[in-house]
Amino acid sequence: MVNEMIKASIIGATGYVGEELLRLLMAHPKVEISGLYSNSSAGSNISSLYKNYISRDFLLKDSGETIDCDVVFLALPHGHAAKFVPGLLARGIKVIDMSADYRYDDPAIYEFWYKVEADRQNRAVYGLSELYSEKIKTANFVANPGCYTTCAILSMYPLAKAGLIEPQNIIVDAKSGVTGAGRGAAPYAETEGNFKAYSVAAHRHTSEIEQEVSRGFGSEVTLNFTPHLLPCKRGILETIYLQPKTSDYDKIKSAFEHFYANSPFVHFVSEMPELKDIVGSNNLHIGAKIDERTGKLIVVSCLDNLIKGAAGQGIQNMNLMFGLDEALGLPKLAWYL
Amino acid sequence: MVNEMIKASIIGATGYVGEELLRLLMAHPKVEISGLYSNSSAGSNISSLYKNYISRDFLLKDSGETIDCDVVFLALPHGHAAKFVPGLLARGIKVIDMSADYRYDDPAIYEFWYKVEADRQNRAVYGLSELYSEKIKTANFVANPGCYTTCAILSMYPLAKAGLIEPQNIIVDAKSGVTGAGRGAAPYAETEGNFKAYSVAAHRHTSEIEQEVSRGFGSEVTLNFTPHLLPCKRGILETIYLQPKTSDYDKIKSAFEHFYANSPFVHFVSEMPELKDIVGSNNLHIGAKIDERTGKLIVVSCLDNLIKGAAGQGIQNMNLMFGLDEALGLPKLAWYL
Amino acid sequence: MVNEMIKASIIGATGYVGEELLRLLMAHPKVEISGLYSNSSAGSNISSLYKNYISRDFLLKDSGETIDCDVVFLALPHGHAAKFVPGLLARGIKVIDMSADYRYDDPAIYEFWYKVEADRQNRAVYGLSELYSEKIKTANFVANPGCYTTCAILSMYPLAKAGLIEPQNIIVDAKSGVTGAGRGAAPYAETEGNFKAYSVAAHRHTSEIEQEVSRGFGSEVTLNFTPHLLPCKRGILETIYLQPKTSDYDKIKSAFEHFYANSPFVHFVSEMPELKDIVGSNNLHIGAKIDERTGKLIVVSCLDNLIKGAAGQGIQNMNLMFGLDEALGLPKLAWYL
Amino acid sequence: MVNEMIKASIIGATGYVGEELLRLLMAHPKVEISGLYSNSSAGSNISSLYKNYISRDFLLKDSGETIDCDVVFLALPHGHAAKFVPGLLARGIKVIDMSADYRYDDPAIYEFWYKVEADRQNRAVYGLSELYSEKIKTANFVANPGCYTTCAILSMYPLAKAGLIEPQNIIVDAKSGVTGAGRGAAPYAETEGNFKAYSVAAHRHTSEIEQEVSRGFGSEVTLNFTPHLLPCKRGILETIYLQPKTSDYDKIKSAFEHFYANSPFVHFVSEMPELKDIVGSNNLHIGAKIDERTGKLIVVSCLDNLIKGAAGQGIQNMNLMFGLDEALGLPKLAWYL
Repeated sequence: MVNEMIKASIIGATGYVGEELLRLLMAHPKVEISGLYSNSSAGSNISSLYKNYISRDFLLKDSGETIDCDVVFLALPHGHAAKFVPGLLARGIKVIDMSADYRYDDPAIYEFWYKVEADRQNRAVYGLSELYSEKIKTANFVANPGCYTTCAILSMYPLAKAGLIEPQNIIVDAKSGVTGAGRGAAPYAETEGNFKAYSVAAHRHTSEIEQEVSRGFGSEVTLNFTPHLLPCKRGILETIYLQPKTSDYDKIKSAFEHFYANSPFVHFVSEMPELKDIVGSNNLHIGAKIDERTGKLIVVSCLDNLIKGAAGQGIQNMNLMFGLDEALGLPKLAWYL
Repeated sequence: MVNEMIKASIIGATGYVGEELLRLLMAHPKVEISGLYSNSSAGSNISSLYKNYISRDFLLKDSGETIDCDVVFLALPHGHAAKFVPGLLARGIKVIDMSADYRYDDPAIYEFWYKVEADRQNRAVYGLSELYSEKIKTANFVANPGCYTTCAILSMYPLAKAGLIEPQNIIVDAKSGVTGAGRGAAPYAETEGNFKAYSVAAHRHTSEIEQEVSRGFGSEVTLNFTPHLLPCKRGILETIYLQPKTSDYDKIKSAFEHFYANSPFVHFVSEMPELKDIVGSNNLHIGAKIDERTGKLIVVSCLDNLIKGAAGQGIQNMNLMFGLDEALGLPKLAWYL
Repeated sequence: MVNEMIKASIIGATGYVGEELLRLLMAHPKVEISGLYSNSSAGSNISSLYKNYISRDFLLKDSGETIDCDVVFLALPHGHAAKFVPGLLARGIKVIDMSADYRYDDPAIYEFWYKVEADRQNRAVYGLSELYSEKIKTANFVANPGCYTTCAILSMYPLAKAGLIEPQNIIVDAKSGVTGAGRGAAPYAETEGNFKAYSVAAHRHTSEIEQEVSRGFGSEVTLNFTPHLLPCKRGILETIYLQPKTSDYDKIKSAFEHFYANSPFVHFVSEMPELKDIVGSNNLHIGAKIDERTGKLIVVSCLDNLIKGAAGQGIQNMNLMFGLDEALGLPKLAWYL
Repeated sequence: MVNEMIKASIIGATGYVGEELLRLLMAHPKVEISGLYSNSSAGSNISSLYKNYISRDFLLKDSGETIDCDVVFLALPHGHAAKFVPGLLARGIKVIDMSADYRYDDPAIYEFWYKVEADRQNRAVYGLSELYSEKIKTANFVANPGCYTTCAILSMYPLAKAGLIEPQNIIVDAKSGVTGAGRGAAPYAETEGNFKAYSVAAHRHTSEIEQEVSRGFGSEVTLNFTPHLLPCKRGILETIYLQPKTSDYDKIKSAFEHFYANSPFVHFVSEMPELKDIVGSNNLHIGAKIDERTGKLIVVSCLDNLIKGAAGQGIQNMNLMFGLDEALGLPKLAWYL
């Protein structure tokens, strides 16, 4: 496979995640765009919707058409993946689902938080590359993690695994740019200059973070997760308050550095990370500080919600599924400006 | 006094707080601008620096000149107030200091956090109008609170006082627009689209919040305070994680509503507040939610850092010191757009 | 009338212009809000939509209800005013229409550009206070000018009137913040960081500018008008290229200063104006420079599209119609920050 | 040369243009970073200033050190290039100067506009790849064009050359994001939400545009150029008013399409271009419309000032100078979000 081009299709190509997938896949040296599907825009050329694609010729097709390629990215709202998954898998096409539909070990938890019936027939590998690369390499079906959840899980898992933090009193205070909510979610005049918390004590990603962090601890964890909407386009930054079992910063540092020693994208940094250090790249930066006065450990981490939090993570999974270097074709250098 | 105009001067008139004081004082029906002082710009007209003052004629003077008026606002960086305070008070001029220099009960705590020698001769009343209006009414010298601290204290004090929260595990996750850091702090290209935590476990306002919240509890409190820089101009929003002694939201609500029943500016709101609800006004909005899964109480509150967090609070204090309605001349309606 | 309160109603109170009218009218010392009408939100309290109105109690009503007050502001999209105008005028209620429906001398021009049938029965006075204050003072029905047009007309009329410019080769390159387009027009993620021209050679305001500038010249003028969308909330800035009949800057300056000598809101400024000098106020600033190399006169002017370009201008007209000082209750000082 | 890596150095590596050069060069398949020079930060690692370079190890050196490589990019303010040019050329190192120092045919024009003495000994090829690729291919020394000028020249040259426009009454109304002015130029709080014209009738780029557009016409042209500062980071959009010799849009379209038929980066588009279509790429988009009422031709064009307006153009020149495909390693797809 390595010497051939991977034929990739996107169903839901005109949403923000679909568009970002297309942008990144076009820069991938081993990928050839096979088909772009969008029921709402079928028959249009992608360049009439996204004018950055000027001079590229991609006709949007109806997702009812027969799809023939090596891998399909499903970039649809939750509740829609099951229409496509069985058929694609049956025809030997690998599937990477960007929605929450197959992320849960326990379908009942999915159903509780998403108020939609789960598909109990098909199971996907949870596609957090830094945790499950071995399983992903042999998977035909991967459920790509959520944006907030990727940031939160990768910031706590190594500490939980190393037994350096308590499972109680975990607080994840998360802030996201508006592309996380998709098209049309935020009117400019009421978003610029504004800032707010939303879905307080009720956001669905809470359950996905808990599932994975619980695995790190080896026991069930319940935690606080509060998302906020930033007046910017891209990026998630999370400030995580933890109860450390050590007061030694170097142990915290070592745990992160050891865990991510072979990761091309996750970096433990000595100063607290900022969005501009990572926006535009597939990187996740993590910093930490122990508050000597209160004994709390504060972890600050950030990623680009459309890249490491969605499309980039999806392509990292694709690379693993096709036996490629997991970093191939992915941006490692943030835009900064 | 009520029927005469108050002659007000500003020392440090060209910083962001000084400018906001001038803007608000010019709209005050009982105030007459007496003198504007700025050593760096002495001899210039304010309208050459701030062109919104077109057609207003205010010559900036050197603060070494003799000052004769009813009240002076000191809008200087910390460490400079003591040069002016004794002389002004001796001449019967009331003083409202916008800096941290006189905010502390214990000068040693000021010196520890600010690395500057405290003035131990002169003491000010802490100017948080909602807590200390009686003392402020008879004061000649008021120390105006910090921006982050006003938001944090007013969001916790009523609960502490009512015995509804534990003094442990308090986390204040605070986000501020860039005007909080004054002129020149944030270059546009590295601030727009960016977001970051700063001074993690080390911000000076921590100590000021602790001083006042401890009073609410009646015992010493140590807490976590993490400031962040938002890509917007005005506004502070704080997400505060507390351990409630009750699981009854209505008791929380009542405590706030009762405490602020007579306050013209502090409002408990049923949905979580947003910056756009308060920016441009002297209002502080507070919302709360109990996370039933974790038992935590999450309080979200916000204010305009230049108004209720600085200039507006200063004028509210001035109103009290001169026997006026505390709301006189202050904006009660946010800009929204 | 002067000693009584003016009872004012707004039909279309929940759009951006309606909301801005309400905000400004609430600060007006001679106005009492009588009724707020919004068919889409009838039955709701305004504070459930615009949370800056916390603690204010305004129930939104259906515009089919009987309206009884002194003045009605119609803040509706074009094509809707005629439903209300005759009935209101018949009952002795003054009307200020914020739409384009009655701005044209020649209804055919309105119909050509707006593709809607004009009301030929009722005629309004064109409500540009600086040009037509005498007519407005005795009017019962005023058509409030457009935002782009106010800026353009006031920047050219004095020069045309004074015979200082040629009527040929006029170019108005205009840039507006997004509130000019109303609610929901601009999704954040595709507006922040973006900038574009729109309706090139086809924007309706062209015809309104031409109507009034032609009056200044005393002959028919055809001009170029190109609007652009700025990534900001408020403000219009126009760069106008003119062919001067003089090369003497002082004559240009004098023409403006003389024409606006008694205007409380229009200021000729020595340095080119910026949005931050005027946003939040009812002011319009005008600067000018002659390019000695090309002989062109470049006029740069700006205003707040929601205030001098809409709601503030409407209230200025109301003041004139009720015999009040035209500046009463209107903001003269920009926010700056 | 084609099969070897090009060793490239940057003098002035820590300014915005230097940083963008580094970011783009690191993604270039045929370039190896040789040395980064910054006198103000010599001895520091680039990753301590620009944290996007985490895990990259580039020590900043003093530009007084001996430089040995294949090509040097000079990313310094104007007036500094002559210190480096003769020595580098003498040692056989190719030079691409990003400043204005060597852009002028007539050194006297440079001296008049820049108030600095020109180097009359060394002459560079003007590095606008779309106009001068043949000369650039054999050049050892290239003067990279300005950002505003690239956009303006490429928008007018094909029309001038084809005899489709008059040389009189040309107006270039230009709007730029703040990175065009370099680090520290724009404090956030006075830039966000603001918009202004600056250097009206006095901007240095006027002379550079005139030099090249005059070549297109074959005669001396004097034109109006007005720059404005947009509240965004990247991107220049220019609205250009021209007097066409034809009223046939198709002729305009053909002239552009024919001229840029082989250009990988310049695209004539059917709808007016927007910044988001090009930001992040080396593309320049051009749209046009004839105003039938006034007879004017309005051309709207845009580019990313840091890429096609600076660093990307520089690398395009490097590609030509080293016999590579001019598009090699350069981003052809805008970020869009």
